[in-house]
Amino acid sequence: MQNIKKRIVIAGGGYGGLKALGELAHRNDVEIILIDRHPYHYLQTDVYDFIANKTNITDVAVSLVTLTGYYCGKVEFVQAKIENFDFTANTVLLDDGNKIEYDYLVIALGSRTFFPHQIEGLYEHTHGIKSLKWAFLFKQRFEQAMHKKVEEEGSCAIDPDFNIIIGGAGLSGVEIAAAMSEYSQSFFKHSGYACGGVNVYLVEGAPSIMNGLDPYLIKTTEKKLKALGVKIITGTRIQKVNENSVELSDGKTIKMNFMVWTGGIKASPVLECVEAPKNARNHLLVDKYFRVNGYENVFAVGDCAEIKDSNDKILPPTAQLAEISGTLAGKNISAMIDHKIPKHTTDEIDFKGVLVAVGGTDAVAYLMKKFRFSGILAFLVKKLVCVGYKEPLIAKCRIGMKKCAAK
Amino acid sequence: MQNIKKRIVIAGGGYGGLKALGELAHRNDVEIILIDRHPYHYLQTDVYDFIANKTNITDVAVSLVTLTGYYCGKVEFVQAKIENFDFTANTVLLDDGNKIEYDYLVIALGSRTFFPHQIEGLYEHTHGIKSLKWAFLFKQRFEQAMHKKVEEEGSCAIDPDFNIIIGGAGLSGVEIAAAMSEYSQSFFKHSGYACGGVNVYLVEGAPSIMNGLDPYLIKTTEKKLKALGVKIITGTRIQKVNENSVELSDGKTIKMNFMVWTGGIKASPVLECVEAPKNARNHLLVDKYFRVNGYENVFAVGDCAEIKDSNDKILPPTAQLAEISGTLAGKNISAMIDHKIPKHTTDEIDFKGVLVAVGGTDAVAYLMKKFRFSGILAFLVKKLVCVGYKEPLIAKCRIGMKKCAAK
Repeated sequence: MQNIKKRIVIAGGGYGGLKALGELAHRNDVEIILIDRHPYHYLQTDVYDFIANKTNITDVAVSLVTLTGYYCGKVEFVQAKIENFDFTANTVLLDDGNKIEYDYLVIALGSRTFFPHQIEGLYEHTHGIKSLKWAFLFKQRFEQAMHKKVEEEGSCAIDPDFNIIIGGAGLSGVEIAAAMSEYSQSFFKHSGYACGGVNVYLVEGAPSIMNGLDPYLIKTTEKKLKALGVKIITGTRIQKVNENSVELSDGKTIKMNFMVWTGGIKASPVLECVEAPKNARNHLLVDKYFRVNGYENVFAVGDCAEIKDSNDKILPPTAQLAEISGTLAGKNISAMIDHKIPKHTTDEIDFKGVLVAVGGTDAVAYLMKKFRFSGILAFLVKKLVCVGYKEPLIAKCRIGMKKCAAK
Repeated sequence: MQNIKKRIVIAGGGYGGLKALGELAHRNDVEIILIDRHPYHYLQTDVYDFIANKTNITDVAVSLVTLTGYYCGKVEFVQAKIENFDFTANTVLLDDGNKIEYDYLVIALGSRTFFPHQIEGLYEHTHGIKSLKWAFLFKQRFEQAMHKKVEEEGSCAIDPDFNIIIGGAGLSGVEIAAAMSEYSQSFFKHSGYACGGVNVYLVEGAPSIMNGLDPYLIKTTEKKLKALGVKIITGTRIQKVNENSVELSDGKTIKMNFMVWTGGIKASPVLECVEAPKNARNHLLVDKYFRVNGYENVFAVGDCAEIKDSNDKILPPTAQLAEISGTLAGKNISAMIDHKIPKHTTDEIDFKGVLVAVGGTDAVAYLMKKFRFSGILAFLVKKLVCVGYKEPLIAKCRIGMKKCAAK
């Protein structure tokens, strides 16, 4: 029996990789190796609450050790950095020199923050939030800013401005801006501080925040951000970042205490040296079955792949797309193991909608291409989606934890 | 009218100073100057919740700017460091060279963490929690420890011990130990992490935790701490603190990742150079009316005074004693302004009891020298006491905030 088991290697334990894992781990004729350089699945979509001190670190990081422990030795977790892939020899090369062979490979390596080098000083003076380590650093720096405000309560009239700048007004940027502004404003006001909270600037080069999304979403979110005191600057690029200021394309300079950059992503650096069909930003080119062009048994899902919809339009990278593509790729591999022809294609990609958290118990929703609403109901739907994603994983972790301990 | 107003200077905006302020600020024939080096009243008694990430920084720091703003120009807040007092010339000397004259002076400077120099390395390698700055640093370091655990989830079998050591098992030490242990254990367990939380050691030289308090309190608290996983070591002194370990008087050495020291306090350093009757630790000696021995118009309250009960026994320094002595001293000053003889003495000191928070929604209570209970009821009483103290202050701050803004 052992010998005929198919080995599936999943490279990356993020939204995409874990969905693929979920599709395959119930089979008895496979062994799965999940590789990630971190021992956790980082829930980047929930990070705004973590930054605003509303949740703890384990609320944004699910243990891959216990999650794979749940699957009773059928799934092995390898914490390692991947050096390269050899699609011809069907092997994954780890940076410790080890090689792992596979029958099927799912590349789900996600993306990293991209700091365009045209923007001088951007990399040196800003934070990203695409890794737990960075989000944690940022959270602590934000808290230090709050502490500084408290220490300077006596002299706030002299220096009333404490500016946090968020570069990039995509979903992440918007949600973080809202959470920080709401948190800092509300808790200073609520506690009767003279100095007020910090200023949050949201700077975006495109003509609007969340550019390209539904106009209702954009308009409503913008209104709510403004009500929270977020200063929105659109149609304006960041040209230079200095240690304590940011220079904009309209000639203005804003004082900056610290800055987070959510303005761009690039594919995982692992893909830089991988020999495979890629676009200019190293995203893997896939066919409609999520297979890397030219390779029958190599799939790429989520942020690290260039995924096109049925109209040949490149889909923007989101956690939702990672989940959908991970699921469909997993189903296709399952079919292939059964000697069937894979049938799940990019045509099936159907977004449930967009939910934007805008501080406190408020959110803006656009669901199933027809329902548009905001307020506490949207917030509850958002929470439901988060909990619905996270809780089943954590339930598995808790069981996996006991299995680990029993070993 | 202006000229006959009595000027009262309150040195220190802590539990004692603010109670004295509250007793005097309703009078129309006084002007009060509150001096503190910080612009906030630090609620040290609530700090365990802050360290365990359950509250925010403004929950443990009440703005003195807006609080004094509430009293409409009758109370002035001066943020300054006090250099010295001249009880003969009736002046307070600030470290910027300014002098403030007074008719009555209340010294309520509190205490600082005392690091006995006999314990080698103690000052270099440990944190105190008697200032907001230190508590904040400690909170962030604790959070960094949590983050480190998450990052090391994959290899926890190799290094399962992450040890936080608390030196000194008085009320502060016990409450912090409980909060940290409960927080770290519960959130790792709840989230299905393999590695478990951190180890919290509570080390005390005296034969028991909370030495000298009611036996029920001690026994029940000890039981609950143990249930939370706190490792209690009593009757054992810390002899030396190294960068990563602690050497105990029983010859054992414990690995230490970081350490907080709550094992001793000393009077404010300002009192070192004050010429006045003091004990060996620079606490001011007061008569039964809380007046510094030999001075009719100088009062000392709270941690910076040596306060004795009716049996001539020195009372241990607590927030409760600071509040009671501040209140009684304030009443005595009020009487003296009315040309009456002060009548409130140390004989009136009557403790309402002791409430020990032991993590989550659990606490241990010993009230009015007869009621002993624990669990959620004790927790609720504790919360009620905290809220009952804090909320009226914050309500004043919120009003003061508007008055400040209106000016």
